[in-house]
Amino acid sequence: MVIVGAGFGGLMAAPGLARAPVDVLVIDRHNYHLFQPLLYQVATAALSPADIAEPIRAVLRRQRNTTVLLDEVIGVDRAARAVETRSGRPQRYDWLILATGSRYNYFSHDDWPSLAPGLKSLDDATLIRRRALLAFEEAEAASEPALRQRLLTFVLVGGGPTGVEMAGALAELAHATLSRDFRNINPQTARIILVEAGPRVLAGFPEKLSAFAVHSLERMGVEVLLGTPIEAIDDHGVTAKGRRLEAANIIWCAGVEASPVAQWLDLPAAKGGRVQVAPDLSVPGHPDIFVVGDAALVAGPGGEPLPGLAPVAKQQGRYVGELIARRARGDTMPPPFRYRDQGALATIGRHSAIADFGWIRLTGFVAWVIWGIAHIFFLIGFRNRASVFLNWIWAWATYGRGARLITGEVTTLAPESGLNRPHDA
Amino acid sequence: MVIVGAGFGGLMAAPGLARAPVDVLVIDRHNYHLFQPLLYQVATAALSPADIAEPIRAVLRRQRNTTVLLDEVIGVDRAARAVETRSGRPQRYDWLILATGSRYNYFSHDDWPSLAPGLKSLDDATLIRRRALLAFEEAEAASEPALRQRLLTFVLVGGGPTGVEMAGALAELAHATLSRDFRNINPQTARIILVEAGPRVLAGFPEKLSAFAVHSLERMGVEVLLGTPIEAIDDHGVTAKGRRLEAANIIWCAGVEASPVAQWLDLPAAKGGRVQVAPDLSVPGHPDIFVVGDAALVAGPGGEPLPGLAPVAKQQGRYVGELIARRARGDTMPPPFRYRDQGALATIGRHSAIADFGWIRLTGFVAWVIWGIAHIFFLIGFRNRASVFLNWIWAWATYGRGARLITGEVTTLAPESGLNRPHDA
Repeated sequence: MVIVGAGFGGLMAAPGLARAPVDVLVIDRHNYHLFQPLLYQVATAALSPADIAEPIRAVLRRQRNTTVLLDEVIGVDRAARAVETRSGRPQRYDWLILATGSRYNYFSHDDWPSLAPGLKSLDDATLIRRRALLAFEEAEAASEPALRQRLLTFVLVGGGPTGVEMAGALAELAHATLSRDFRNINPQTARIILVEAGPRVLAGFPEKLSAFAVHSLERMGVEVLLGTPIEAIDDHGVTAKGRRLEAANIIWCAGVEASPVAQWLDLPAAKGGRVQVAPDLSVPGHPDIFVVGDAALVAGPGGEPLPGLAPVAKQQGRYVGELIARRARGDTMPPPFRYRDQGALATIGRHSAIADFGWIRLTGFVAWVIWGIAHIFFLIGFRNRASVFLNWIWAWATYGRGARLITGEVTTLAPESGLNRPHDA
Repeated sequence: MVIVGAGFGGLMAAPGLARAPVDVLVIDRHNYHLFQPLLYQVATAALSPADIAEPIRAVLRRQRNTTVLLDEVIGVDRAARAVETRSGRPQRYDWLILATGSRYNYFSHDDWPSLAPGLKSLDDATLIRRRALLAFEEAEAASEPALRQRLLTFVLVGGGPTGVEMAGALAELAHATLSRDFRNINPQTARIILVEAGPRVLAGFPEKLSAFAVHSLERMGVEVLLGTPIEAIDDHGVTAKGRRLEAANIIWCAGVEASPVAQWLDLPAAKGGRVQVAPDLSVPGHPDIFVVGDAALVAGPGGEPLPGLAPVAKQQGRYVGELIARRARGDTMPPPFRYRDQGALATIGRHSAIADFGWIRLTGFVAWVIWGIAHIFFLIGFRNRASVFLNWIWAWATYGRGARLITGEVTTLAPESGLNRPHDA
């Protein structure tokens, strides 16, 4: 059987199959499992890529019936019961779990992805880190005040968890970490602007918590613009609700859509490109194909669709893994999938987070400590946990950020700033 | 005054100038100081880039008379007393310290750099890491035995410290870390071949220690070919002394040459492209220009040129910084520069290193422990020290390597292996 994608959903499907009479093939286009909830900390130089990524092979090493393959799935051939891959080698399946997640949705603006990079992969994170750090360097070298201010302005498009976390982390980077490192500019004058089209940030949380987040961000110096849809993006800034914001760094934290699973399966895509699945998470009419995680549309207890969050993907992956193991053994079927809501957390910055456990809602320092403990706990790998913990303690004590590196191909954000540096010779 | 390059030489020149009546400008084309002696551990997935790099601004933050500029120096205009930069903004100097280090020398083979990447920068290291890890992935996917063996063969060109350390680290990666992670290949069958044109490895050490290193490498499964000059390199392997070695990964660890300082100064280049300097490390005829580190040719106590090693650069940088501070204050001149040899260390692998302190020579476990302590001690930054220490303890206990990530643009090593993966969408 084949599992496509080693994110939270795919990886959690594997353990249940470890002792089942099946051969498991896990295909992913990266060689690592990525702990996406902390990706924004890589983008803002607090953590290194390796701190939040674990080789898939290392995770599944002891599961002897499981093989890992680095390849990219590009389609499903249901007649041949095989997935099609970038390498041209189809992989046959008897059972198939599609756990391919989601990707950014730029709403058909083809030029926006390059102007406003999103934050989904490690390469995205190091690109955003490079561009953010480079902006301060170019501003330090620039002499024209308007150019300087443009270089020191960051626009975050979208007030979901990623937008809020990025805004808080960038504010800390500019206002604390870098504050004494420059001579010609004052990084504390950097503007961090969070632009949200809807009426509030963190729409998945209760209204009171959203309001707390805005208050908390504003205290950190972030400008929050609500009810402000983005109309245009160019390489000098954005236009939002008729208002012009000059900015060298625009980061896309807005809508996502499911990976093209519906297209692969020749099915109509539901809201957000997702695939409507049966109560056992199989694809209607194809009891041997399952979709879990962000790409699956599953109704929650209240009838509304479950959100694209890690706990949802993990519970679905675990459920399907066990279901297939039971079928392979000839056991009885489990009851339909039911999501157990364990609460939601979002962090805003140093000493500030929000938590909603249904029966209790927390804000501020207590929520921040719970957030930290939960994220260390859910990280895979002892080394990663220890390293993230060490980095956080150090950052907390010193306001430092351990990964302030401009690496990779370096290009300028503003040609007129004079810095136009080629790749290393 | 201007310091070009924030490697060991440039960075050590700064503290002596902290209280001198001068304005100091440090120019580097990267935003970080790189601890090059551990770069091979990044290339072999043991450490993350941020573990061995520290932002130059953070290092010099408290030195109020010092400004840091991200830019690349491309020449010196002695008439105008200014350095020319990539950005087009010349920077005037009254005193100038050139600490620009060295780069790989491919002896006029223009196609070799892309076929056999060298290990000088962080981007080099992540490129080599990517290619090495990708070779195992492609071998796992390949079915043809000859292709598999080519993908699992690594040729290291040059038996200096980098070649020896890379060979040992790659042997550990293949034979220990990855040994249980694959199903179709046995990483223990990977061949690591160290090819040296001269009669022995680590030519800077006494012969007995070189022999120990070869013995130690061979016990780790490395093939050492001495007296074997490379004649040709192509994308399928190398030809060395008439012998064909099929290899997907060829890594250049051979000769280096000085950065083009002699050319900038319109001076004849001495051996290795270096600039012959006066006893006070100034450029003859230009008492206001100093060259330190790999780019300077300075005679040691026995008359032979001092090697291009970190301790040499550091002592020279410190000497020139203090000399300029004295001159600026109108103090007496210091005596000519004299190198204090504190011994040399090279590591081969787990539990094995060599140390030469002149009065005592050590091999094996004791030398390995000294090597580890010395490298932790010389790292800049508490966070880096703690992180490297943590990673080493973990690697020692588990044979794991914490940074096994294939990141950046991924291309195939062998198109016929089928893996030909484009950039992330």
